[in-house]
Amino acid sequence: MQNYKIIIEYDGTNYYGWQRQENLPTIQEKIEEAIFNFSQEKVELTGSGRTDAGVHALGQVGNFNLKKDTNETIVLKALNAHLKNERISILSCEKVSNEFSARFSAKQRIYQYLILNRNSKPAIDVNRVWWIPKKLNVEQMQKAAKYLVGKHDFTSFRATACQAKSPIRTIDDIVIIKNEDLIYINVKAKSFLHHQIRNIAGTLADIGKEKITPEKIKEILELKDRTKAGITAPAKGLYFAAVIY
Amino acid sequence: MQNYKIIIEYDGTNYYGWQRQENLPTIQEKIEEAIFNFSQEKVELTGSGRTDAGVHALGQVGNFNLKKDTNETIVLKALNAHLKNERISILSCEKVSNEFSARFSAKQRIYQYLILNRNSKPAIDVNRVWWIPKKLNVEQMQKAAKYLVGKHDFTSFRATACQAKSPIRTIDDIVIIKNEDLIYINVKAKSFLHHQIRNIAGTLADIGKEKITPEKIKEILELKDRTKAGITAPAKGLYFAAVIY
Repeated sequence: MQNYKIIIEYDGTNYYGWQRQENLPTIQEKIEEAIFNFSQEKVELTGSGRTDAGVHALGQVGNFNLKKDTNETIVLKALNAHLKNERISILSCEKVSNEFSARFSAKQRIYQYLILNRNSKPAIDVNRVWWIPKKLNVEQMQKAAKYLVGKHDFTSFRATACQAKSPIRTIDDIVIIKNEDLIYINVKAKSFLHHQIRNIAGTLADIGKEKITPEKIKEILELKDRTKAGITAPAKGLYFAAVIY
Repeated sequence: MQNYKIIIEYDGTNYYGWQRQENLPTIQEKIEEAIFNFSQEKVELTGSGRTDAGVHALGQVGNFNLKKDTNETIVLKALNAHLKNERISILSCEKVSNEFSARFSAKQRIYQYLILNRNSKPAIDVNRVWWIPKKLNVEQMQKAAKYLVGKHDFTSFRATACQAKSPIRTIDDIVIIKNEDLIYINVKAKSFLHHQIRNIAGTLADIGKEKITPEKIKEILELKDRTKAGITAPAKGLYFAAVIY
């Protein structure tokens, strides 16, 4: 068996997320089909993280095993050829040891959340950003983000349907950058809870709107109550940017 | 009569270009309809430049006259409300003197051409870039661009159907920047010939592929023959970025 690691870009708009589902188009399914179509092998593709419907990826990572050892450049080209009608692109393919798991070998995952902060709706980036017309105070958002960095109980920021055993996670870094009308929220952690970043983005937006103070986020964390934090920001603004192994 | 200046962003993918055409959706028509729908006035919208089908705009400029003097913020909101189902967004609206013409008052127009230069096809920027898998030599492209700056006869770079009286144009500046996999070709001039930037981009791509030398572009200019230059690069990579008045 030969293990292959692939880096994947996708536009999540028209997919029901990463994970295979009965009768619904998903990223995992489309790539597994592409692997089958060129290799005639039925494989299971492991993803580094499950993304929800509408969430994009700039650098999702997957791995799968093939019985037949094939040159990695040929695998890359074959996959992209079979994915030509999909909004999915395989950016690289390399052979890796059998121990490598896109999911369990990951040391850090990096997500990016994009807010378009201007009066007028997006015409070009329609499915790519969360549009917030009201001017956000980015400095306040940056202050608030500091309280989230480190090891915390993120109950207030996890989906009620989240299946993780523990609500404890360690956020290594949150960097918020404003570039013209775009605000980028970059979050780095070993792993995340379900909706954690979108719930953080929704709460940071409230802080940017000056509905609540930056210090309030510390209190929200301590309350361990999902209803105390902001809304779940829309999926279309979220990008799975990279994985560090 | 009150003259209004608007700045417009659009995704050109699903429109037949800027200019009104019988029975085909165009940007000009959609905005004129939006103006009519809120003001009940039939106006002609003047654009700073006509863009072809599939070409995008980050900062197209238009102007139109209304009999009824209305607050500019109200005009802006009303236009965007009536354009809510279109890939068109009005970024700003201001009252201007009657002498102002989006077309004739323009001092400089700035266009941007985007090339995605990597092995794998775009998954996210499908209709936004020209994808060139072969690695381009950007330094050679930069060298070649210098020969195009200044006042020249651009016959070799104009569409054969171009209706301009003279093929003489002055390019004030071409700046080529590479940022990761994206190559940006920024071109500034008072005015352009039909397809001029796309024909320049197509020829610069040949230079980047090292099919021809940078010096060759001087010769192509002097030959005044459209067949000597490169292909017309696809519309989807072109952005009308800004107008200076």
